[in-house]
Amino acid sequence: MKMGKAIGKGGKVVTFASLEGGGFRACDPDTCTMGEEIEIERFLAPVQPSKIIAVGLNYRDHAREMGLELPGEPILFMKPATAVIGPFEEIRYPSQSSRVDYEAELAVVIGTTCRNVRASRAKDCILGYTCLNDVTARDLQAKDGQWTRAKSFDTFAPIGPWIATDIEDPHALSITARLNGEVKQSSNTSNLIFSVFELVEFISSVMTLKPGDVIATGTPSGVGPMLPGDEIAIEIEGIGVLNNRVSS
Amino acid sequence: MKMGKAIGKGGKVVTFASLEGGGFRACDPDTCTMGEEIEIERFLAPVQPSKIIAVGLNYRDHAREMGLELPGEPILFMKPATAVIGPFEEIRYPSQSSRVDYEAELAVVIGTTCRNVRASRAKDCILGYTCLNDVTARDLQAKDGQWTRAKSFDTFAPIGPWIATDIEDPHALSITARLNGEVKQSSNTSNLIFSVFELVEFISSVMTLKPGDVIATGTPSGVGPMLPGDEIAIEIEGIGVLNNRVSS
Repeated sequence: MKMGKAIGKGGKVVTFASLEGGGFRACDPDTCTMGEEIEIERFLAPVQPSKIIAVGLNYRDHAREMGLELPGEPILFMKPATAVIGPFEEIRYPSQSSRVDYEAELAVVIGTTCRNVRASRAKDCILGYTCLNDVTARDLQAKDGQWTRAKSFDTFAPIGPWIATDIEDPHALSITARLNGEVKQSSNTSNLIFSVFELVEFISSVMTLKPGDVIATGTPSGVGPMLPGDEIAIEIEGIGVLNNRVSS
Repeated sequence: MKMGKAIGKGGKVVTFASLEGGGFRACDPDTCTMGEEIEIERFLAPVQPSKIIAVGLNYRDHAREMGLELPGEPILFMKPATAVIGPFEEIRYPSQSSRVDYEAELAVVIGTTCRNVRASRAKDCILGYTCLNDVTARDLQAKDGQWTRAKSFDTFAPIGPWIATDIEDPHALSITARLNGEVKQSSNTSNLIFSVFELVEFISSVMTLKPGDVIATGTPSGVGPMLPGDEIAIEIEGIGVLNNRVSS
């Protein structure tokens, strides 16, 4: 099933679910009971996380292209919830940077409050998966040393288009970034250094995860700059395509 | 005025305000109208921020003791809201670390949603000031390079005991950390490299700040380790004392 948030006909914000047959139905987010069929005007970010925990260098090929050693443990950083935008919303190019990169990432959406979860039980805490673009001001990342500023600008966390709740194996999904239609990143989540379940164990041993929290699992090789007016599409097998444009 | 949250007699969570005369009154957090006088059983963290933005190396003496150059711009990192605890709650010593430090900090509490605020107008966005202990697993900070994990453990952000809303000049306050009664940090916010107002300008040029968000403005020299059973007290002139104990 795919779940998300959208503006329906008439301008009302609705939580929707889509079933195999196609089309969208209203859905009560608390009980997950289905309502009437709805028409969708515009998709919104499917989740408003209380926090986004992201992982650096979690694909071997990306660590190599950045000239960095493979980490022995996941390297964590955070992006603020104020950076979240939805599908087709514009990424704003900040005046402080002259190098803003896309980073295609598989995002884990947490379903229940959890702490100290073993990898073998991590599935129980996961609501589903979505696409995330870990937009990064590469020049500021290098300058600051700490990655927070470079990754925290408003609009630097496009998420969507919805949450896929029926992915059996999150470690066998092709992941692609296309810039103005041209493939720039093309990998598979089988290349993750730390698996989704290992990340849930590692992160929840540090901090309590809450429903709606997002774990961004890292990006494969092929990261590169976007320019004002560019269109960036992140596609993950079994989920869908997250499209955004850089404001000009 | 001092504003905060507490558990009153009978176990109910109340927002309180204290006036010059002493004693506490219930206070409607939205309208700030005063209610009846109340007895307080236990103080809670005065705010539950949507994000905590913290600043590294913002006192000259602390940069020196860490052997690091003075930054040309503020270095930002984040602590998750799940790390927040209130006065007299216990700091949990994580099994992953063998060196957990206190860091006394002046915390700015944001009052209104703001973005791209000039330093000269920053006062308009600030609700008040409180004490924050930026608890840090120093060994993990060094190991990871990125500071997020080291500063994000549950209970690593003690805040309180309340928000002082009537501080005229936040750059003339003595700030002290006492470990088991012994003074370990003793400085004055006049030694801040980047002022509170410059920080609001810098951070709000990156990300939207929301009511209740907290800016931790950095710690002076004298940071050091805490051990299980230790009592740590952060005191800031014009605010009060934030007491916490490390769980044994």
